[in-house]
Amino acid sequence: MSAANSASGSLRVVGLGPGLAEWITPEASRILAEATDLVGYAPYVERCPQRAGQVRHGSDNRVEIDRARAALRLAQEGRHVAVVSGGDPGVFAMAAAVFEAIDHGEPAWREIDVAVSPGISAMQAAAARLGAPLGHDFCAISLSDNLKPWALVEKRLIAAAQGDFVMAFYNPASKTRRDQIRAAFALLRQHKAERTPVMFAKSIGRADERIIVTTLADAEPGLADMATLVIIGSSETKVIVRGAGEPFVYTPRSAGRAP
Amino acid sequence: MSAANSASGSLRVVGLGPGLAEWITPEASRILAEATDLVGYAPYVERCPQRAGQVRHGSDNRVEIDRARAALRLAQEGRHVAVVSGGDPGVFAMAAAVFEAIDHGEPAWREIDVAVSPGISAMQAAAARLGAPLGHDFCAISLSDNLKPWALVEKRLIAAAQGDFVMAFYNPASKTRRDQIRAAFALLRQHKAERTPVMFAKSIGRADERIIVTTLADAEPGLADMATLVIIGSSETKVIVRGAGEPFVYTPRSAGRAP
Repeated sequence: MSAANSASGSLRVVGLGPGLAEWITPEASRILAEATDLVGYAPYVERCPQRAGQVRHGSDNRVEIDRARAALRLAQEGRHVAVVSGGDPGVFAMAAAVFEAIDHGEPAWREIDVAVSPGISAMQAAAARLGAPLGHDFCAISLSDNLKPWALVEKRLIAAAQGDFVMAFYNPASKTRRDQIRAAFALLRQHKAERTPVMFAKSIGRADERIIVTTLADAEPGLADMATLVIIGSSETKVIVRGAGEPFVYTPRSAGRAP
Repeated sequence: MSAANSASGSLRVVGLGPGLAEWITPEASRILAEATDLVGYAPYVERCPQRAGQVRHGSDNRVEIDRARAALRLAQEGRHVAVVSGGDPGVFAMAAAVFEAIDHGEPAWREIDVAVSPGISAMQAAAARLGAPLGHDFCAISLSDNLKPWALVEKRLIAAAQGDFVMAFYNPASKTRRDQIRAAFALLRQHKAERTPVMFAKSIGRADERIIVTTLADAEPGLADMATLVIIGSSETKVIVRGAGEPFVYTPRSAGRAP
């Protein structure tokens, strides 16, 4: 692994968006076409077009940091590596793992040609389907406590409620993690109005796409799973009921004048 | 304007991303190609490819709600209208204006075929260029007080600091609005550590693209203008210094274990 090899390899972190092929940026498609190696969670790698001579390194979901290190080693050997992520790789996805690996890895990794290509994240696809719930100040919170204490999630939920932000919840639940979304709703009911709009956006951009618009009083935690993005309105978020079709949800551009 | 006409028209809200053509989604490109009418702020409409027979309605920046109403009227007349926005239309952009217009407009507008197509927002492009500063919980705040009282911005800044969110500031300054970013930095200095990373990302995806990585202690408000996205780190956000090239900035996936 000479310095020359190190200089000639590259690593790109790309996102496939939330599921719809038309949401993958041309930049991401080009990077996937040009890469000598694809590295990622196996279902994401399988979604990429097959290219002759390209090496595909699919892996399990729970080894993000190992996957990042393997990708850096390939780039160091002179390969042109695309690390494949869902959504936007910069939002609760692989980009942070790559930079963690660089930060804690060998010094030569800092000099590798590394760049991130942005993508459509789940909250944006969910918002688009609903109307414009993220039309004003909002925050994005992962409800997973795999990598952070639940007390920090609670602190952020309370702060987000006090700041009257719209909230987008990533990782609201998984097969083995069912309590967090229940606890989050219970906490928010102490800090926000019962009529606050709550939206469940499931599998957006896929065949089983489903939207549910309800209120904080009625929100059923069991509706959230791994493929669900949950959005909680601010005090200004409004629901437009329609004669036909799903309601629209939006947060006005002006704020602070509601009762 | 019969019910039949109303049923046959459509309105799509699309985003051109932050400036790079490769960041425009295939869905947005298709919608722009299929539209009979383009409606938007004139510089955005000018960025769209010319199509024979397509009518282009460019307008000034300060008439978003009028523009939304004009687009709805065209759709009601049976036209297929694309409302063109920068970035992601759902994030501090045209989508909210369209739904405000529907909410306060004539009842028939609720039945128009309206949909939003998501796009790459400025904070995602800025984050990609920096590394992964939005890799964990974050919020997006518009510093403009044109449409909300400054007291609400202050409340949200304090809440975001108390929640230790990474923050992305949209509209940090304009030619006539120079004080807000100065006031925001002054307020955050009372609530966050002086060494907190602060990033200015200017004109990302354009020829004059520029990144500045500094700290809250040293952040110079004068660096922000209309084309700048400002990112404030959380207590966990880290800067990776490199021998060659700009530093990387990232927020780890794990949190709550820092001093």
